[in-house]
Amino acid sequence: MKDKFFSYIQELQDTITAKLAEVDGKAAFQEDTWERPEGGGGRTRVIENGNVFEKGGVNISGVHGALPKSMQAYFGVEDADFFACGLSLVLHPTNPMVPTVHANWRYFEMYDKKGNIVDQWFGGGQDLTPYYLFEEDAKHFHTVCKNACDTHHPDFYTNYKKRCDDYFWNTHRNEGRGIGGLFFDYCRATAELKLTDWYNFVTAVGDSFLDGYVPIVEKRKDLTYTKNQRDWQEIRRGRYVEFNLVHDKGTLFGLKTNGRIESILMSLPPHVQWRYDHQPESGSEEERLLAVLKHPKDWI
Amino acid sequence: MKDKFFSYIQELQDTITAKLAEVDGKAAFQEDTWERPEGGGGRTRVIENGNVFEKGGVNISGVHGALPKSMQAYFGVEDADFFACGLSLVLHPTNPMVPTVHANWRYFEMYDKKGNIVDQWFGGGQDLTPYYLFEEDAKHFHTVCKNACDTHHPDFYTNYKKRCDDYFWNTHRNEGRGIGGLFFDYCRATAELKLTDWYNFVTAVGDSFLDGYVPIVEKRKDLTYTKNQRDWQEIRRGRYVEFNLVHDKGTLFGLKTNGRIESILMSLPPHVQWRYDHQPESGSEEERLLAVLKHPKDWI
Repeated sequence: MKDKFFSYIQELQDTITAKLAEVDGKAAFQEDTWERPEGGGGRTRVIENGNVFEKGGVNISGVHGALPKSMQAYFGVEDADFFACGLSLVLHPTNPMVPTVHANWRYFEMYDKKGNIVDQWFGGGQDLTPYYLFEEDAKHFHTVCKNACDTHHPDFYTNYKKRCDDYFWNTHRNEGRGIGGLFFDYCRATAELKLTDWYNFVTAVGDSFLDGYVPIVEKRKDLTYTKNQRDWQEIRRGRYVEFNLVHDKGTLFGLKTNGRIESILMSLPPHVQWRYDHQPESGSEEERLLAVLKHPKDWI
Repeated sequence: MKDKFFSYIQELQDTITAKLAEVDGKAAFQEDTWERPEGGGGRTRVIENGNVFEKGGVNISGVHGALPKSMQAYFGVEDADFFACGLSLVLHPTNPMVPTVHANWRYFEMYDKKGNIVDQWFGGGQDLTPYYLFEEDAKHFHTVCKNACDTHHPDFYTNYKKRCDDYFWNTHRNEGRGIGGLFFDYCRATAELKLTDWYNFVTAVGDSFLDGYVPIVEKRKDLTYTKNQRDWQEIRRGRYVEFNLVHDKGTLFGLKTNGRIESILMSLPPHVQWRYDHQPESGSEEERLLAVLKHPKDWI
């Protein structure tokens, strides 16, 4: 399974970066491969200052070795070995009418001292962070998520949409980071669902990513915008930074377990603003977005 | 002691904001007073878009009541009441030749159920974050810190300079947030030092703040700078955000104990950049700054 899924994310990285570079039309992805001293490594691909994408990364990694002390405590196990691989992407478009998107699909195995697999699971998801709300875009993104779920289990979309809203909640601001999508974790083999079923589900979600995001980019990338709208985007990007650095388990985990910092923090937006106590005008589009972030909606 | 120190920080806030507004010459501090539902409140004063200060805050607060659950665990006590007051300030100048400064002086009391004081201590410090290194400015700032310490105890400067370098260490970047200053905490009465001695020390440090910072601002505020130097400042401000949101105990404490978010996050810089894997040019001033941040120096 680990070889099968690692091959899958390698191919998916190629597919996604090729398509996004084509959509951008100007900037190319720059590739850095890196090695982890304790075992494994990754392939980071970053795009900057494109026609469409101001900054973004589509990264894969596959790491293995002794489970670090901090992860032992986290998983409640003692000495163990592990393998983890995944694809993580974040795209920050220049135009505030185009939403930021994040996605991650990952697989984890844990071994006893004899090398037997003692635990294995999939996790992942994708979510959208608009700066201006186009309801048809929100519906489109969620419909693609739902379709990817529905052929695998009738409850998946409802459950994982809810978990996404819960996970990407900026507690200290009492608002969502964005308008959600899917979030799932610890997807283990059960009587009902074999590990292969989970593989089929997670890869179906990964395969759907471009269908969910690219049509939105194509529809919004040439819309005009004002300096004030760009300022609003940069202020909202501040909330993205706050979530990623204060609350996001994946980011904090990477920072505290000697991960490759530049690959982890490629998720941070290129230009960001913080203003004291900024409030959108009453009745504005900015206020309309905030209302939805504070009260997550069902989009379908 | 609590009334005496709270009066002190109220007066100090007036003194500091009056002087900084005079130095700025354009922007005034805007004041917000706020109440904490559980007891106490604060007076936040923010300056934005001045001649010198792009964004900054000089805030005081005095809060009291039942010790929140999260703080009980932190201090290893059960049911208790508390009082805490302090002044916190952060100033982000527009000109990259002028350093960012942070300071905080605080006092804490804990009570048993009968209202008896069971613990009480002072804490605080001040530290400088330059974007370009002027050695004479670093020496000046540290000399003012040392002079404020030396009349109180011959070991204070050495000890608290070291603790400042240790505390403001951006672990995941393996570099300091800035060039340090002083950091002290849990300053309790002992056989050698009474609580009044600590009060005299902490207020001497507070009184020295303007002497440490203003001469540097006056000397650097009218220097010319390039777009590249401003970009470097905004990139370095990103590291400031990373420290405050990932590592700073005060910030995280406030965010997780229902503090007033806008007063806590006034510390975040106004315009910030993140670029993938940015490295300064070999032999540049930017590289010279990094070398000092990675290996804290003795400035005196």
